[in-house]
Amino acid sequence: MGSHSHSDRRRFLMGGAALAGVVTGAVRSVRGQTPAPEARPRDNLAYGQPSRFDDTIRKTTGRATAISDTALMTPLQDLDGIITPSGLHFLMDHVNGVPDIDPQQHRLLIHGMVDRPLIYTMDELKRLPSVSRIYFLECNANSRPLRGPNGESVQLVHGRTSCSEWTGVLLSILLKECGVQKGASWVVAEGSDANKYTMSIPLGKAMDDILVAYAQNGEPVRPQQGYPVRLVVPGWEAIRSVKWLSRIKVVDQPYMAWHESGNNADTRPDGKGLWFRFELGPKSVITRPSGGQRLPGHGPYEITGLAWTGGGAVRKVEVSTDGGRTYKEAELQQPVHRYAHTRFRIPWKWSGEEVVLQSRCTDERGEVQPTIAEAAKNLRVTPDYFYEADHFNGIQPWKVNRDGSIQNALFL
Amino acid sequence: MGSHSHSDRRRFLMGGAALAGVVTGAVRSVRGQTPAPEARPRDNLAYGQPSRFDDTIRKTTGRATAISDTALMTPLQDLDGIITPSGLHFLMDHVNGVPDIDPQQHRLLIHGMVDRPLIYTMDELKRLPSVSRIYFLECNANSRPLRGPNGESVQLVHGRTSCSEWTGVLLSILLKECGVQKGASWVVAEGSDANKYTMSIPLGKAMDDILVAYAQNGEPVRPQQGYPVRLVVPGWEAIRSVKWLSRIKVVDQPYMAWHESGNNADTRPDGKGLWFRFELGPKSVITRPSGGQRLPGHGPYEITGLAWTGGGAVRKVEVSTDGGRTYKEAELQQPVHRYAHTRFRIPWKWSGEEVVLQSRCTDERGEVQPTIAEAAKNLRVTPDYFYEADHFNGIQPWKVNRDGSIQNALFL
Repeated sequence: MGSHSHSDRRRFLMGGAALAGVVTGAVRSVRGQTPAPEARPRDNLAYGQPSRFDDTIRKTTGRATAISDTALMTPLQDLDGIITPSGLHFLMDHVNGVPDIDPQQHRLLIHGMVDRPLIYTMDELKRLPSVSRIYFLECNANSRPLRGPNGESVQLVHGRTSCSEWTGVLLSILLKECGVQKGASWVVAEGSDANKYTMSIPLGKAMDDILVAYAQNGEPVRPQQGYPVRLVVPGWEAIRSVKWLSRIKVVDQPYMAWHESGNNADTRPDGKGLWFRFELGPKSVITRPSGGQRLPGHGPYEITGLAWTGGGAVRKVEVSTDGGRTYKEAELQQPVHRYAHTRFRIPWKWSGEEVVLQSRCTDERGEVQPTIAEAAKNLRVTPDYFYEADHFNGIQPWKVNRDGSIQNALFL
Repeated sequence: MGSHSHSDRRRFLMGGAALAGVVTGAVRSVRGQTPAPEARPRDNLAYGQPSRFDDTIRKTTGRATAISDTALMTPLQDLDGIITPSGLHFLMDHVNGVPDIDPQQHRLLIHGMVDRPLIYTMDELKRLPSVSRIYFLECNANSRPLRGPNGESVQLVHGRTSCSEWTGVLLSILLKECGVQKGASWVVAEGSDANKYTMSIPLGKAMDDILVAYAQNGEPVRPQQGYPVRLVVPGWEAIRSVKWLSRIKVVDQPYMAWHESGNNADTRPDGKGLWFRFELGPKSVITRPSGGQRLPGHGPYEITGLAWTGGGAVRKVEVSTDGGRTYKEAELQQPVHRYAHTRFRIPWKWSGEEVVLQSRCTDERGEVQPTIAEAAKNLRVTPDYFYEADHFNGIQPWKVNRDGSIQNALFL
């Protein structure tokens, strides 16, 4: 597209190296530790707000595990289309508070196995060629609370996924500016939160499609989402998408950091740990009608929901209104973006009888979302296993009772 | 797509007629008159907010005309990608205040030349088949303040355009449910603001692609944007996209209502009024670097901006760094959506000399954005004419001075 050729772009990048400061001494410490920075004061004219009648908010589960304690869920049942409003994006980890970072003071260091370690200011990052892409994020622990009081709504079970238009620089552009050395095979990304959140990512993915993102849905990334800059790693568990990004070290092995080891790895039935499962499987869930809602009466409805996959694009979503005996293909909102939430819709007429609604995603690789029984069989576990396991992408059945009430039917 | 055929959909629509209440008596009055409803109280965990360091806000011009007095501009220079955050969407008309509407009480009446006048509740609207589409809106008066203190920034000159993912029901579905009678040729849409804002729209457009939208960027439409439901008329001047929609009357002639006549029609040089110019022309503007900004020094930059057209899709955007003598084609953010903002980007290296930057849009019909001189010649007026005229889509030049400062070069 356009008349600027590959060689133009290369020249631009060569010239661009002058933008960032070469590392000469000690790394400047960049961190903020205010536990919860206040939203800036704003009036409703300078920055509009939702209606006082609109109660679409993030809710938290009441479960007392390290993640669920603080995680806040996207209210999927109240949303339409594929964009999640930034104020409603789920939070995957709030344990260490949200750093209160002044973008003028923030720096991103790239070092390790590179020819030219560089430090970027935010202004320098924004002078580089940018891209905008619609990508979903999903926490590895999404869909854990499959039953109990938190299993009642799509928000509390599946609300650890959101989708935004992210803008930033491809990480590959920064790595090329620094010159990755032979033998390098991983990058280790570090955030500037109090705990220095750290994640290892294979170099191949880093050179492919990872974004160093400074904007979300048009405006600067929100503090809770990594202001002023974060990684967005498309299709992979969201714990890899390091927020408040301040350092990337190019290395020759993963670092097995705290967040990627014991804290976020499942234990298999044989006692071994499941480490480095990056990619998310094909998944879908009906968001309306869904658990906790009540149909006012029989007659026509629209069934709608979201599908996504770490395998790229969603190819089809099928909807069953008889508990999985038969399926009909739903309409997919166009265009379908790779690594993005995909909205599906299908008209439905409720007879007033008891029915079970569920959806099934097939992705561009031909991989099909399993039932929980199939998922358990694949791992040689009982379905109960997924109550505490990560990466669960099983089919979610919702039972519509005769009185119109709807409940989670996964363990009925 | 999918197995629900056209006849399925038709059956659904026939059945759907039972959803909406048939009009039997007087129309229920639906209006709210609080001048400026307060944003609902919310904490930063339930609904996230921008960083306190982020000063991306809507600004108003200081000009004392009926529209500009109250219009609030989208800060285009601070935004990325194609989605405008809902809190930063421009306001085209705030004169009569924002009605404070309880969605449970709100009704939409469709009547006039129809077989079955119907009243819809919000819940009934949401049971009908929905679509989500990314559409821009642009005020007919956008780009008026071409010089003077308000001419200094892209926000204050061109910030009366924004782009959202809108979700709702196609107006054609509602009109088909009501059964449009022979001889009907227009619809008149009315808002429930204190002033009963009213607009006429040809029936052909109403049966084509107009949305009755209840969601914007995923969440319910904001009060300032028409909560709980508004029209979105793609590609046409935004004054047609009636907010707080409460009534649609099917008629056989336009109503020449106050807002569409003297208040919003230009006067030609021969003294005649320019009425019913619905469609917006091809347009583009460089948003960074742009007026009021300052380049910190020579070297590589990214030039970026937005293009859009009432003619459907943007086909190409060219950028000139020599005041229009030569142009290079910019890269367009993919996918390009019809009737949506289209982000363009091109790398540029500033030598430190004085230069004039400008962009030129060509749309899918082959229509090309004119210079202000060409636009004036077409209308047989002097360029000054556009200082007070509507529908100006001329090329916007920005002059970069040797000290890096940037100013509006349209009238230099």
